[in-house]
Amino acid sequence: MRIGELSRRTGVSVATIKYYVREGLLPAGQLTSPNQASYEETHVRRLRLIRALLDVGGLSVAGIREVLEAVDDPGQPVHKMLGSVADQVVPQYKDGGEPGERLTAARKAVAGLIERRGWRSYPGSAAFEALAVALAALEDAGHGAFAAEVLDDYAAAAERVAQVDLDYVARNVVREELVESVVVGTVLGDAMFAALRRLAHIDASGRMFGLGG
Amino acid sequence: MRIGELSRRTGVSVATIKYYVREGLLPAGQLTSPNQASYEETHVRRLRLIRALLDVGGLSVAGIREVLEAVDDPGQPVHKMLGSVADQVVPQYKDGGEPGERLTAARKAVAGLIERRGWRSYPGSAAFEALAVALAALEDAGHGAFAAEVLDDYAAAAERVAQVDLDYVARNVVREELVESVVVGTVLGDAMFAALRRLAHIDASGRMFGLGG
Repeated sequence: MRIGELSRRTGVSVATIKYYVREGLLPAGQLTSPNQASYEETHVRRLRLIRALLDVGGLSVAGIREVLEAVDDPGQPVHKMLGSVADQVVPQYKDGGEPGERLTAARKAVAGLIERRGWRSYPGSAAFEALAVALAALEDAGHGAFAAEVLDDYAAAAERVAQVDLDYVARNVVREELVESVVVGTVLGDAMFAALRRLAHIDASGRMFGLGG
Repeated sequence: MRIGELSRRTGVSVATIKYYVREGLLPAGQLTSPNQASYEETHVRRLRLIRALLDVGGLSVAGIREVLEAVDDPGQPVHKMLGSVADQVVPQYKDGGEPGERLTAARKAVAGLIERRGWRSYPGSAAFEALAVALAALEDAGHGAFAAEVLDDYAAAAERVAQVDLDYVARNVVREELVESVVVGTVLGDAMFAALRRLAHIDASGRMFGLGG
């Protein structure tokens, strides 16, 4: 198809498509004449993945480029590839200047949780550090008790969600689409769960504080 | 305390503290001489809240200003206040140019879910729209089946997490700190759950694909 049809099919403007090709996010089309190129279904799919990561996942163009490089690299074993992709889509936190001992204590709490639940893990995962930073930030904001009281219940809910995610992958995803599916499911799954948690908050808060006024 | 001590206590530089005062995020200190001001414990707490929203929550300065205005407004009933705060910390999505019928279908799916689970809700909540956008984006990315298959399990897990959140609030939070706690718990709770979901993925993926290589 021509670039105009690719634009209509995906809702992405021609100028933006050309920008993604220049930035290396989208492979160039096959040249059919000196100033005309032809695009395939793989371009449609890739464009939708880019938009999902950008609009809903909130990733930067540079972040998306890194994720797509991992998606397109056939040389890695599946588990390693999934791990490196997952590391890239974990939210990265700026250094808030917290005192170091809080982060050290938070890392110990994360290690303790992983041991309590018997989770397989690997050293230096971005998820480990992200959890420690979130716990330290809760402590800094005066809500260390919240983290301590809810952590295990959150972990049990996360286990359930992760199992549902992996069951879906095992049932529906062929190997070539595995990494792409994990990226989409991780980023959009977070957005989906966050929205569901808000809706459940509205329900629980309505029961607790009343809906009047 | 003087601004230097406030800076030491919070790990936020003096220049940044002055910037937050200029931007209206932090109340000015009490002037004790023409060029010296005195700060209280409330400033320490407010600064930690600002850093948590900025560093872990990823909110903009303008977004934080809106949240703090709701936190500081004593004139609203609790449930409305919590709702407006929750709306502000729901991720806002850019228009990805998706075809409108997908979003319409996604909104119907959200309404159906709310009815199935018997959740109290209110029209036009940001969480409703955020969930619809996430579902539409999954459909656009070729993973509509994922959303359809996992939605109810995610909702059950979100219900459990929301109940744990509200139980904590009921046990530990006095009315004056309610909104602040909800903001912190919402934003940092999302970050905590996302990190836990990744750690649970590593465990589940290790069991499914093996940790070797």
